[in-house]
Amino acid sequence: MGSLEAYDAALDYSYAPGIFPAMECLLRHPERVRRVLVHSKAKDAQGILKLKELCAFNNIRVEEADKALSRISGKDNCFAAAVFEKFRGELAKEESHMVLHHPSDQGNVGTILRTCLGLGLKNIAVIRPCADVFDPKVIRSSMGAMFALNVRMYDDFEAYRAEFAAHLLYPFMLDGAVNLNEVRIETPYALVFGNEGKGLPEAFAEMGQAVRIPHSGAIDSLNLAVAAAIGVYFFQNKGGNLSGKDD
Amino acid sequence: MGSLEAYDAALDYSYAPGIFPAMECLLRHPERVRRVLVHSKAKDAQGILKLKELCAFNNIRVEEADKALSRISGKDNCFAAAVFEKFRGELAKEESHMVLHHPSDQGNVGTILRTCLGLGLKNIAVIRPCADVFDPKVIRSSMGAMFALNVRMYDDFEAYRAEFAAHLLYPFMLDGAVNLNEVRIETPYALVFGNEGKGLPEAFAEMGQAVRIPHSGAIDSLNLAVAAAIGVYFFQNKGGNLSGKDD
Repeated sequence: MGSLEAYDAALDYSYAPGIFPAMECLLRHPERVRRVLVHSKAKDAQGILKLKELCAFNNIRVEEADKALSRISGKDNCFAAAVFEKFRGELAKEESHMVLHHPSDQGNVGTILRTCLGLGLKNIAVIRPCADVFDPKVIRSSMGAMFALNVRMYDDFEAYRAEFAAHLLYPFMLDGAVNLNEVRIETPYALVFGNEGKGLPEAFAEMGQAVRIPHSGAIDSLNLAVAAAIGVYFFQNKGGNLSGKDD
Repeated sequence: MGSLEAYDAALDYSYAPGIFPAMECLLRHPERVRRVLVHSKAKDAQGILKLKELCAFNNIRVEEADKALSRISGKDNCFAAAVFEKFRGELAKEESHMVLHHPSDQGNVGTILRTCLGLGLKNIAVIRPCADVFDPKVIRSSMGAMFALNVRMYDDFEAYRAEFAAHLLYPFMLDGAVNLNEVRIETPYALVFGNEGKGLPEAFAEMGQAVRIPHSGAIDSLNLAVAAAIGVYFFQNKGGNLSGKDD
């Protein structure tokens, strides 16, 4: 492995920028970490010592790389990053799923991953074209949640559906037939959310139980990460998956 | 009024960047709009004609100002902005409130404003130090929701509380005594959310019914805008305020 380039989707590796995301990467996928970058000013930063201990334990190289860190993160205050090999997640067949159809905003995707992990929905399909889930911006806004989830990108919805034909689809649509409060939840389910600007194609209304989150006419729509949070909370809560502080 | 400066909190005016936010500003507060800026390339952009019609109807000057638009928005693809006088919102005493205590991220504040408007919670107190609610970044991420709400900044929580002593406080805290699903809702309520990194000071636990949003131990906390969305949806829904598409 040569010098570190700015992230590009074509690379077979990516970066987990930030102490917390880098730590999550080391804890969940130590075998995939090629090296860890730290900033020369980060010596006493909270978490840096633990990060270095984890690297020592796993025999992973640590190097000071101030310029590479600012290039990778686009920020001057990024104290650490893990360089890791990309991997392919496998969704669990018997568990419920989140399906993100053509999401374009990296921050939204990261936030949704963090929400899903927090609310116990651990299998995420992302349908292309979409924000690259390995982009450091996604990883950063997910706070490393990415590494604790099963995340997989599919070329189209049909490819996802062919693999998981038994999941009950709940497409979230502005004109969904059933109000979220009245929806009958059956498991395993797949909650499907569309693009930030365009939502889901009309055809999804016929592919499952289309759900509407009630909101006032004063806004066009809720923010995607907000709508996903409300939907996931509602489903996971009703399904009894939010009882306690288990991991 | 002279040339247009980059936004600064000390100015008595601000900018609503983007066609949709500028339109909201014109529809809700036409008397406060000093002028409207449009990009020379925006001639056929959707919404520009309606924007110009509204300006003509309200006798507001429209000018081409490509450079000012990119300076104000920090983007090259900003097609319009309204220049408006700042104003002081008044919260309704008999209605429920959202209280944001020291929020620091402009995007979060904007997203929360949009969520509140969509879910019918129209009175928002923001406690300093905090992101400036008139910052164009907040207005943009609120999609102009800012202009349809009663938003007011307070110097400290006591100043807010002195004005609204009767509101039942529901501070959202990681160790809140009651699970969101089990909370007893009384109106008018004030949902209180803390800073992104630090949450609320411990003292809030004694000031009302502290609420916990159940989530897994795999994350430290939910994103602020996500937690607020779940909290507002739950309260507004249980309170019967999410029946339909009214404004």
